[in-house]
Amino acid sequence: MQSNGLSVLVTAGGTIEDIDTVRSITNHSTGRLGSLVADEFAAGGARITYLCAESAVRPQLPPERTVTIRSAGQLAQTLECLLREQRFDCVVHSMAVSDFTPTGVLTIEGLASALQQRISGGRLSPEAVSEALASAALAPQKKITSRSGQLLLALEQTPKAIGMIKALQPDTLLVGFKLLSGVGEDELVTAGQGLIRQNGCGFVLCNDLSGIGPEEHEALLLGNSGVVGRAQTKAEIARMIFEQVCEEIGVQT
Amino acid sequence: MQSNGLSVLVTAGGTIEDIDTVRSITNHSTGRLGSLVADEFAAGGARITYLCAESAVRPQLPPERTVTIRSAGQLAQTLECLLREQRFDCVVHSMAVSDFTPTGVLTIEGLASALQQRISGGRLSPEAVSEALASAALAPQKKITSRSGQLLLALEQTPKAIGMIKALQPDTLLVGFKLLSGVGEDELVTAGQGLIRQNGCGFVLCNDLSGIGPEEHEALLLGNSGVVGRAQTKAEIARMIFEQVCEEIGVQT
Repeated sequence: MQSNGLSVLVTAGGTIEDIDTVRSITNHSTGRLGSLVADEFAAGGARITYLCAESAVRPQLPPERTVTIRSAGQLAQTLECLLREQRFDCVVHSMAVSDFTPTGVLTIEGLASALQQRISGGRLSPEAVSEALASAALAPQKKITSRSGQLLLALEQTPKAIGMIKALQPDTLLVGFKLLSGVGEDELVTAGQGLIRQNGCGFVLCNDLSGIGPEEHEALLLGNSGVVGRAQTKAEIARMIFEQVCEEIGVQT
Repeated sequence: MQSNGLSVLVTAGGTIEDIDTVRSITNHSTGRLGSLVADEFAAGGARITYLCAESAVRPQLPPERTVTIRSAGQLAQTLECLLREQRFDCVVHSMAVSDFTPTGVLTIEGLASALQQRISGGRLSPEAVSEALASAALAPQKKITSRSGQLLLALEQTPKAIGMIKALQPDTLLVGFKLLSGVGEDELVTAGQGLIRQNGCGFVLCNDLSGIGPEEHEALLLGNSGVVGRAQTKAEIARMIFEQVCEEIGVQT
């Protein structure tokens, strides 16, 4: 039996946060893993909505719908629209989403002056520092010129798109991704369990940058009961996610 | 007569400055204009060294040598090597080089604490702020986790690669590029004249983001005596640079 009728949303690629008109903060992600996941599900008969960065690798099997976004803010907006208008049996959220977005640029001189005004009784609280940063920040609209040798870029947290998924569709099966750098398996599993708890993921694909190379991609799949699978390549990861999701939903592969 | 024997170095694309292992600051530039300039010179018989970002568009006519770099620091190093080992009749420096590179990430709490220690007699000098920033900065080696709602990214100026070109090869003809955003022609020309003076450019290609679209690319070429040409597309710009350089060097096109 094919997994016919499954409706799956796959996110892929990395978001881009603009600093000004010529510079941006980019999250490195080719989207290749997401494209392979989409292809596994499509080959099994699922209808795919592919929500990706413009530069992301596209699936070989054309998705039913492809939507491209640029920033983490646009991702949150688009995800909300998609989740309100269509029911998905499963959401595989492999996109590398920027946690922070630029809010302004500060010069050392501008910051020093704003801080000076907020020193009270020889003290400077974190709240006062936060206020000074906001007041001294120049809007990052134009190309920033480089007169001073140092600059500061103020960043604020982006909306946590993953948190919206189960809130809007409590019955969907959510597959989250956790990427860390240079940690051991215990720490990786603990972080993955945190993602399961916080966002209601059914599974979390846990991986560490040190295990990702041109050919290999070490990863483990974490379910509510613990590690349910391991893979060594992107193709194996895609197959593992497909099989575990089908088993969980009760569709034969 | 062909411009045989001309040795030309063309830089193209945008530099990438890593924030941590999964994020970077990217300067937007496809490298297409640089690739067209390289092709104009190659078609005229010149030997091309193409120094570009990995993602940059490559010339259609294979350059004699292609060297790829990632960051502004690597650009400066590579440029120095190339200029020490080979004499170029002309250097066309179209690469979009980041003026700043990340040196560390700061939390508001960490910065507030470092600033507090440097308040002296109720005062905080720019130097003290600068010291506090340096001491509170976390090295951007690992993936930055997002516990706090605000972060600061400290940036320092990158080496000015363009300044090395005439210093190392006083006889080369240097073509610089000036890109501004939303300014009038007077301001653009003034900025271009500044580039000529500071870096000994023979020509500066001046353009504004507002005049660059999918099909059009408005630009003017500035020489020591003023505006020597105007163009409306990337192909026209490449041709104009080629012709003006050949005329200046005394090679027929």
